[in-house]
Amino acid sequence: CDPGAAAEARAHQDRLTKPRGALGALEEVAVRLAGAAAVSPPPIPAPAALAIFAADHGVHAQGVSPWPQEVTQQMVGNFLAGGAVANAFAAQVGATVRVVDVGVAADLPPAPGLTVSKVAYGTADLSRGPAMTVEQAVAALEAGIAVARELVEQGARCLVTGDMGIANTTASAALVSAFTGRDAAEVTGRGTGVDDETLARKVEVVRRALRVNGLDGGAGAVPALETLAAVGGLEHAAIAGFVLGGASLRVPVILDGVIAGSAALAAAALAPAAVDHCVAGHRSAEPGHALALAHLGLRPLVELELRLGEGTGGLLAHPLVCAAARVMHEVATFDSAGVSEKEA
Amino acid sequence: CDPGAAAEARAHQDRLTKPRGALGALEEVAVRLAGAAAVSPPPIPAPAALAIFAADHGVHAQGVSPWPQEVTQQMVGNFLAGGAVANAFAAQVGATVRVVDVGVAADLPPAPGLTVSKVAYGTADLSRGPAMTVEQAVAALEAGIAVARELVEQGARCLVTGDMGIANTTASAALVSAFTGRDAAEVTGRGTGVDDETLARKVEVVRRALRVNGLDGGAGAVPALETLAAVGGLEHAAIAGFVLGGASLRVPVILDGVIAGSAALAAAALAPAAVDHCVAGHRSAEPGHALALAHLGLRPLVELELRLGEGTGGLLAHPLVCAAARVMHEVATFDSAGVSEKEA
Repeated sequence: CDPGAAAEARAHQDRLTKPRGALGALEEVAVRLAGAAAVSPPPIPAPAALAIFAADHGVHAQGVSPWPQEVTQQMVGNFLAGGAVANAFAAQVGATVRVVDVGVAADLPPAPGLTVSKVAYGTADLSRGPAMTVEQAVAALEAGIAVARELVEQGARCLVTGDMGIANTTASAALVSAFTGRDAAEVTGRGTGVDDETLARKVEVVRRALRVNGLDGGAGAVPALETLAAVGGLEHAAIAGFVLGGASLRVPVILDGVIAGSAALAAAALAPAAVDHCVAGHRSAEPGHALALAHLGLRPLVELELRLGEGTGGLLAHPLVCAAARVMHEVATFDSAGVSEKEA
Repeated sequence: CDPGAAAEARAHQDRLTKPRGALGALEEVAVRLAGAAAVSPPPIPAPAALAIFAADHGVHAQGVSPWPQEVTQQMVGNFLAGGAVANAFAAQVGATVRVVDVGVAADLPPAPGLTVSKVAYGTADLSRGPAMTVEQAVAALEAGIAVARELVEQGARCLVTGDMGIANTTASAALVSAFTGRDAAEVTGRGTGVDDETLARKVEVVRRALRVNGLDGGAGAVPALETLAAVGGLEHAAIAGFVLGGASLRVPVILDGVIAGSAALAAAALAPAAVDHCVAGHRSAEPGHALALAHLGLRPLVELELRLGEGTGGLLAHPLVCAAARVMHEVATFDSAGVSEKEA
C-alpha cells in the first residue's frame, strides 16, 4: 500500500461536493484502491473477470454435505453452459466468466471458457491426514497465479474469486480455525444447507482434521504452506494464488464468501501485503467468514445472507467498488462547482 | 400484489440450480417484484431513471443545519452539470437523471434535465405552523406522479427516488414521528453532519413541530394528507407522489434514504398497496430511517452508512435488484441442467 496515494485520496474525498464521510464505507474502499494502485484517483476497476476454481474433496466421504460429489462436475457444466447464478450475475455486472478445473474428480471435456489445470482428482480426506502434499498445494497456487496473470493480460482490471467444490466449506472451516486459532465449533456452519446432526458431525470432522494434522497448537504454529496443504482444498490453494497474482499486478481482487476468505487467510500468511489489494465482496451466512474477514481487517460490502459461493457475492459487490472509484474521477469539488461549504 | 405470481416465483426459485434460499434477501426481492408485476418471472427492472426532487425548508431558520440554504440551488446546478455523486452513481448503473424543482427558494434558469414544477419558494417553518397548505401538498404530490408517468413513458422500467433540500432531514424526522408514533429523540439524527448542540436543537424543533401541528396524539390520529402538509417538505410530498405514480404503473420504485422512507410512509398511509411496489435501496445512518423501513415492512439492500441523499443509496441498489430478477430469467433448473439435487 502506498500511504501517500491513500492520503491524497482521503484529502480529495473531503474536497468533493458532499458532506465529509457521507459515502460511508465506500470512501474507505476508494482510499484502499488508491493505496493499492499507488495512485489517486485510483483506476476504475472495470471490466471484471470472474474465475471459478473447481475441485473435489476427500472429506466428502465423511458425510459433511447432503449433496452428491458429482454435483461439482455437473455445476462446472452448468457454468460453461451459462446456466448458473454466477453467469446471471456476471452478465448483470459485465464480467467475464472463466472456469478452472484444479481438482475435479473426473475428466472434463474441453470447452470454451474452461481452463484445465488439474492437480489431482480431488484432495485426500483431511480428517485422516493431509488433504494435499505441499507440492500439490504449490501447483494449485501456481495455477491460480497463472489465471490471474492471463485474465489481466486479456484486459481485466478487477478479479473476482469464485469456487465450486462440494464439501468445500468443511475445508474452509478448518483453514479459518488453523489461521485464526478459533475453535472448530465457532467457525463451522451449515454450508449450502445441512441439518443439526450433519452440522455436529461436520464440527467433529473439522476438530479431528486439526488434531490429525497437528494444527491444534494455535494460530501460526505451523507454516502457512503446510497448513494450506494439510486442510485446504485445491480450489482454496488456487484462490490464494489468484489473490497473490492479482496483488502482484496491482489489480484489485474482490473476495467472494467463506471459501475466498479462508483462502485469503493463507495468501495473507504467505504475503501480508496481498491483503491491501483485496476487497471483501460480501459476508456470507457462514460463521467462519466473519471471523476470517475480521482477521484480515476487511469489511464486507454486501450483506444479504447469500450462501451460494461461485463468486456470486463478489460479483454483486463489483458495481459498488466501481462506484467508489468513479466518485474520485467524476465528482466536482466545492470550489469547481461553486457550492458553499458547511459553516464552522 | 398478486399472490399467485409471488407463489409461482417462490416455487421457481426452488427449482433453480442453487441450494434453496441460497440467495438470501435477493430471493425475497424477486418474489416481491413478481407479486408487484403480477407475473413470474418478473421483468428485469432496467433501465432505471432517477428523479431528484429539490426544495427548500422554512425550518432552516431554526438553525437545524450547518449548511447555508443556497446549497440547495447550488447542488441543483451541480446535478445538471453532472458533477454530483448521484451523477457518478447513475453513470455507473446506467440510470438517467432528472432534476425536479418542486420548491427551491429561487428561480432556476431552464436547463436540459430540469423539470420546473415549483409549488412554492420553499415551505413555511414547520415548527411554527403547517409547512404547507393541503393544496400545496397535493400539488407537489401531483408533480411527483406526473414525473413518474413521464419517465415510464420515456422507457424507464425502474424508478429511483432522489432528493435535495437543505434541512430536509428535520422534516423527515417529524414525518417519521407522526406516522410511527415514535418520540422525536428516537427519529432525529445528525443529517449531513451536525454537532451535539445542533442535534439537541433539532430534536426540540421536531418536538415543537409535532405539538404546534397537533401531531403528538399518536400515529394515525391526523389524516395522512394533513400530516404530510403539516410537517413534510415539498420534495417529500413529491416523492410520495412519485411512489404512487410508479406503483400505479406497476413499475418498481427503489427508495433512497430517510427522505424517501418518510415520504413512503405518507404514500403508504394514502394507498397501502403502493408499498408492494417499493424496494428499500439502502439504510442510511439516520435513526429515523430504520424505524420508517420497519414500519413499512421493507428490508434495505445496501448498508454502507451512506448519509448523502440525492438518490445515491437507491442507485447502488439497482444492480442488486436487477440481479435478483435476472436470476429468474436466466438460471437453469436442476432438471434442465442435469444437476443432481440434495439428498434427503
